[in-house]
Amino acid sequence: MDGQPRLDAETKVAEVDHKAELRLWLRLLTCTTLIEAEVRRRLRREFDETLPRFDLMAQLWRLDHGMTLGEVSKRMMVSAGNVTSLVDRLVKAGYVERRPSPHDRRSQLIRLSRYGREHFGRMAAAHEAWVAELLTDLGDKDIAATMERLAKVKASVSASIARGGRG
Amino acid sequence: MDGQPRLDAETKVAEVDHKAELRLWLRLLTCTTLIEAEVRRRLRREFDETLPRFDLMAQLWRLDHGMTLGEVSKRMMVSAGNVTSLVDRLVKAGYVERRPSPHDRRSQLIRLSRYGREHFGRMAAAHEAWVAELLTDLGDKDIAATMERLAKVKASVSASIARGGRG
Repeated sequence: MDGQPRLDAETKVAEVDHKAELRLWLRLLTCTTLIEAEVRRRLRREFDETLPRFDLMAQLWRLDHGMTLGEVSKRMMVSAGNVTSLVDRLVKAGYVERRPSPHDRRSQLIRLSRYGREHFGRMAAAHEAWVAELLTDLGDKDIAATMERLAKVKASVSASIARGGRG
Repeated sequence: MDGQPRLDAETKVAEVDHKAELRLWLRLLTCTTLIEAEVRRRLRREFDETLPRFDLMAQLWRLDHGMTLGEVSKRMMVSAGNVTSLVDRLVKAGYVERRPSPHDRRSQLIRLSRYGREHFGRMAAAHEAWVAELLTDLGDKDIAATMERLAKVKASVSASIARGGRG
């Protein structure tokens, strides 16, 4: 705010408050973009993998009994069309397998194959180490304090969205 | 960490530390994804715009004298091909104009047209208000403290990347 023309109190409140929130959002976005770009680079370089494939396998990893395409699509916030073509390529590579749902034979469940679990397990371990390296200058207390701060951010955003965005 | 089997000290340090950093990264990603998805929804609903178009216009907004396609592509961390097709559509809509660079007639500068500046100005004001709404439960002190925490995150990530990822 230094070096800006002086504003009267009312304008100042309106202006300054919104700018502070915008700056916070931009900093949050910068942190995420930096980490995500580095993870993307390393997945490519060390595993010849893409981030969307990694994210999809991460979803399947958690649910060993399999998921429908619709469930995967919802969890990843990605369109069903995009998920279908990702899954097709992962099936072709041998990492993912399809089987009919035991509850509804018309729908298919997809899950990691044994080979896919081995592949993802190696990537997940590397990913965890990369993230630890990137955040290595933060001590335990820094991490705990940042977790708390971000919990407040998440709570505010979730509450606002739940109110239908009327603040 | 509650309810997990006891580990010896060495394993515990390695395991626990990495998990904490991974959890922090996932929380950061969750906050960003929530806000970004909401901004995307509202841009679509209220301005019939997409986030990549908004981001590109935001870059041009800052530099009134114009930028080359290469500069835009670098700043947005998006491939030149994607930027070209975005720009083509924005030119067609009348929001962006091309002119030869005064320094190098073979390269073109792109910038917002007057109509584009009006359009983006309205969106930017709305965007700032949306973000303020989403973060409305944070007081001034919360915002300042979160900014500081994220500055540490950003510094750690940047330093690690500068070291070539050798942590």
